[in-house]
Amino acid sequence: MTHLVTHHRVEWGETDAAAIVYFPNYFRWFDGATHRLFEVAGYPVSRMMKSGFATPVIEARTRFFTSLFYEDEIEIRTSVGEIRTRALRMEHTILRNGQPVAQGHDVRMWVRLGGHGEALTAEALPSDFRSLLERFRDAG
Amino acid sequence: MTHLVTHHRVEWGETDAAAIVYFPNYFRWFDGATHRLFEVAGYPVSRMMKSGFATPVIEARTRFFTSLFYEDEIEIRTSVGEIRTRALRMEHTILRNGQPVAQGHDVRMWVRLGGHGEALTAEALPSDFRSLLERFRDAG
Amino acid sequence: MTHLVTHHRVEWGETDAAAIVYFPNYFRWFDGATHRLFEVAGYPVSRMMKSGFATPVIEARTRFFTSLFYEDEIEIRTSVGEIRTRALRMEHTILRNGQPVAQGHDVRMWVRLGGHGEALTAEALPSDFRSLLERFRDAG
Amino acid sequence: MTHLVTHHRVEWGETDAAAIVYFPNYFRWFDGATHRLFEVAGYPVSRMMKSGFATPVIEARTRFFTSLFYEDEIEIRTSVGEIRTRALRMEHTILRNGQPVAQGHDVRMWVRLGGHGEALTAEALPSDFRSLLERFRDAG
Repeated sequence: MTHLVTHHRVEWGETDAAAIVYFPNYFRWFDGATHRLFEVAGYPVSRMMKSGFATPVIEARTRFFTSLFYEDEIEIRTSVGEIRTRALRMEHTILRNGQPVAQGHDVRMWVRLGGHGEALTAEALPSDFRSLLERFRDAG
Repeated sequence: MTHLVTHHRVEWGETDAAAIVYFPNYFRWFDGATHRLFEVAGYPVSRMMKSGFATPVIEARTRFFTSLFYEDEIEIRTSVGEIRTRALRMEHTILRNGQPVAQGHDVRMWVRLGGHGEALTAEALPSDFRSLLERFRDAG
Repeated sequence: MTHLVTHHRVEWGETDAAAIVYFPNYFRWFDGATHRLFEVAGYPVSRMMKSGFATPVIEARTRFFTSLFYEDEIEIRTSVGEIRTRALRMEHTILRNGQPVAQGHDVRMWVRLGGHGEALTAEALPSDFRSLLERFRDAG
Repeated sequence: MTHLVTHHRVEWGETDAAAIVYFPNYFRWFDGATHRLFEVAGYPVSRMMKSGFATPVIEARTRFFTSLFYEDEIEIRTSVGEIRTRALRMEHTILRNGQPVAQGHDVRMWVRLGGHGEALTAEALPSDFRSLLERFRDAG
């Protein structure tokens, strides 16, 4: 297995006045899929938070190939594209009826929580988190 | 003048349980700034819609240098980075107290509205829209 | 059967800086549950839209008994509380571990689409829609 | 002075596929206006948070008289309707071109922060907060 599959049905509140999905929602979906992958891998975000860490996004990019409409059923495929010393790259693809709709990635840094107003300071990803993510490592 | 400046104050509803701004909101802000730029340039989205056109985003990317917190005052600088035949590239920078917080861009295609479920078909940007955008063209 | 049950797991993006769910999300969930009920009943919103009608909310109220947190599993129970000539009242209850978390309702009017900027004009609910909703009519 | 006036222009991302504002956004606006009123009164939410308190909403209700559209300019009038021992009632009215669009209220409880998963426990509103709110007390 190299990716996690989550399903979503486009909701009314995700559309805009052009009757298509408002694009920031794709980033919300990808964030949700990443949280789900961490959890299925065995390292939920709630555990990170309790131990005083978080994985803020330091880069996010998506390309949109076609529009999504209300009631569209989509499949979101999420995998771990790259595991660096202090950051992770997550890869996301959205399919509708088996056809690609959008493709994106985000890079998340491993940081200690707190420090209101301070710049983010990265630390090394815990080794058990790294190991658990291997299951969703994208071979390609 | 090469960019449009808009101001925003981080709202409670834009934060998440790590007490920082949830990142999809940056894309929402950049979208709002783009709409505002089109309007200030003299070609509001409502005019596009009335004439049967829209500018869906076909690519969006943002890099986040530091976190934003509730009540933070930010300045969003938006300019037109590139005007292609059928697409536009918008550039965005967020500053807090004069320091860069995030930098992003989005690419928007000029498409005819309608066609529920169909792939987007680009058309050439109207010449008056191109001219009006020159005012916000990023020299650099 | 008197109510439709939908399930939701609180997402990261639904929380705020107090680490609880930001309350406007409850209204979003109730709207989604209402759309789902219309669809399960056999009269999806997409069908309404195609025939030129919509059911805008003219009143919404929710009481919140306790807070919801990231990763909480909730059950949303939705039923049709009242069917008037030109409007519907939907009833919603949220439970977590069988305990009530919030209770709300919304009233939706049956209106013809279009009329940008005009006041909403109600029409009589179609008889087939009324009949289909009976299945989810709240006895109490 | 009995109410605080804030202004908003309807954003693209606040509309839905019926080309009107998606109603949960009104609750988001009212929440923002309440935060603003607390701040203008001299008791910002950030101060509450630092002292370990918050004002979660325990009831919210809005009636919608007409629809709002993209680019609509609105005025939000917010006042303090009632100051109870441990809770506050905020009153909100939205006007467009001087005409009422929606009217709502929310009730907020004064609670000590923390207690993940626990029921909310109210405490008495601080006397300085009560005094500061008098300026925005609705006479009617």
